[in-house]
Order: sequence, then structure tokens, then C-alpha cells
Amino acid sequence: RLRREVLFFPSQVTCTEALLRARGGAPAGEQAALPDCCLCGLPHGESSLSRLMRALLAARVSLELCLFAFSSPQLGRAVRLLHQRGVRVRVVTDCDYMALNGSQIGLLRKAGIQVRHDQDLGYMHHKFAVVDRRVLITGSLNWTTQAIQNNRENVLIMEDDEYVRLFLEEFERIWEEFDPT
Amino acid sequence: RLRREVLFFPSQVTCTEALLRARGGAPAGEQAALPDCCLCGLPHGESSLSRLMRALLAARVSLELCLFAFSSPQLGRAVRLLHQRGVRVRVVTDCDYMALNGSQIGLLRKAGIQVRHDQDLGYMHHKFAVVDRRVLITGSLNWTTQAIQNNRENVLIMEDDEYVRLFLEEFERIWEEFDPT
Ligand SMILES: [Zn+2]
Ligand SMILES: [Zn+2]
Repeated sequence: RLRREVLFFPSQVTCTEALLRARGGAPAGEQAALPDCCLCGLPHGESSLSRLMRALLAARVSLELCLFAFSSPQLGRAVRLLHQRGVRVRVVTDCDYMALNGSQIGLLRKAGIQVRHDQDLGYMHHKFAVVDRRVLITGSLNWTTQAIQNNRENVLIMEDDEYVRLFLEEFERIWEEFDPT
Repeated sequence: RLRREVLFFPSQVTCTEALLRARGGAPAGEQAALPDCCLCGLPHGESSLSRLMRALLAARVSLELCLFAFSSPQLGRAVRLLHQRGVRVRVVTDCDYMALNGSQIGLLRKAGIQVRHDQDLGYMHHKFAVVDRRVLITGSLNWTTQAIQNNRENVLIMEDDEYVRLFLEEFERIWEEFDPT
């Protein structure tokens, strides 16, 4: 059965340390695998944010990110972790947002992750990710703490060959167009 | 076969008069049905905008709109046309954007369409529509001319019972929460 999920936000603020520490991340649905020995004081159950992180941390081979805004520290850590594990990560973002306070883009670049951004007037307003050329993650959510915790947003997580192909084609078009060389 | 489409933007600027005039709108795929007698000077072929309008104008019974920003005059006309035809239209929007120049929300209200908006600090950042409780339209696109013509955006059009149910539930939650009484 193919995965077909929607996450609604705002998300409860939960601790995501366990997800970021587990080698490979716990499989989806194994909520009981989260330890309760963490002393951070936050709830340690599932939330829309933890489900989104889990879907990302499932990547083993490749991750394409096409994001208007990216400032969430937790999602930034997740992406850098994947890069450290050898996942091929490529990021496309919007230059107007990239310069703002708290953007994760600088940290991604410093970690050695390939990032390209637009140069033109229109916004690169997509908010999607493709995991292992198999799962599409897309919706209204910009990857900012403000949006995650305060906004009404949706994120679809779909194991869907046709949509994955169409969004990867869009990613490659943008990737080539934003080639700085 | 269930509908399963993605529209990418920016969209070419095309004339959408024929769509707005046809009683019931031409069925999807009948591109040849567009007349070429219009003297507006714009191209009269299909575009992402015309496909989005066609998906909306297919409504016969109900249309739920949950939109952060709504200022496109063409999409505004399409929604008012559906209301005139007796389609039950309900709109939820964000108060921060509603006050901005060029918002269609005032025109919708003046036409007698039910509109509710949030009161709180977080954004009502969804951009989705549900047509006849059967087709979900959702993506990154705010319904503004700026976004349609200049931004890189995606809109999914899905005939999908499960997603429609989940998004209608979200709509009803927001509709009740934004009840002004
Ligand atoms: Zn903790
Ligand atoms: Zn014309």
C-alpha cells in the first residue's frame, strides 16, 4: 500500500532530539520507540513536525529540496544529518528570503551541501521535497518555526510515481536555470 | 480513471473570457472549443491559469475555498459566476491579506458569498479548494496575479476521496473557528 498522508499545522511543539539521534531514524508509526529520558521539558510524542522530520530522515540515497523559505533549526539539522550520512542533497531556494535573519541556507552551504538560488523578480515559491526519488512532500508550509508553530498549513506526503516524476522534472529545470556558471 | 494533475506556474498570460462566458464551461481537454474571434490580443490557448479556472468552473454543487491571498480578478470572476449559478460557495481567508489593495474578498462579499476570516496572529496560510466534495485543488499558489504570472508555483488537482475528506474536515474546523457569532 502506497503512502498517502496529510499533515496539518500548526504543530504542537515537541522534542525531536530522539529522531535526530537515532541512526537512520525510527520507522514511521513506531511512536513507542521515542525515549522519555530526555529532560528538555517538551512533550515527546508525535506531532506534525516530527512526522515531517521522519519522512525526511527516511532518505537513504537522495533528497531534493525546493523551498521558498528555510529557517527551521530542527529541519536544518535533519538535512545536514542526511548529508553527513552520504545522502545526495540538493537545495533550491529563493534569494529574497535567503538573506533574511535565521535562514538555514548559510549553514547548509557551510556543511558542503549544494544550494542554488534564483536571481529574478518572481519568487521561487515552491515548498516541496523529493525523498529517494520515491516520495513527494509538498504543500503550503514554508520551513520556518513561525509557520510550523503558528500558521494553518498543509503538507502532503505521497508515494506516487507520476507526481514524483513531474516534480523531479520541475526540480531539474530550476536546478539548471539557477546554475551560476 | 481518477483525475491526477499538476499545474506549474508561472503561467502564460492567456485570455480566459471564453471560459467565463461558456455556460458550464467547456469540458477539460476541449481546447478546440475556445473561440478565436476575441480581439483582446492575448493568446487564446490553454495555460496553467486556464486549467485552474476550468477545474473551478466545473463545480455544480459546492465550492470550499481556503485561501491566504485572493486578488486575481479572473479567479474572482470565476468564483462569483459559480455563486450566480447556484453553487454553494464558502470562503475562508486571512485577515492580514484581506485588507490589502486588490483583494477580491470585498467583491465576493458584495456578491453575497459567505466569507470568514481569522482573527489571530498566525497566518491562515492554506491555498486549497474543494470542488463538489470530489476534487481537491491545493499547492503553493496564492491566488494573485503576481504569483500566477511571475512565481514558480505548483497546484495539484486530485480526484481523491481520502484527501478530499481530510481537507473538508480541516475546512469545517476553520469555518467553525472563524464563526464571528
Ligand atoms: Zn526532549
Ligand atoms: Zn481574448
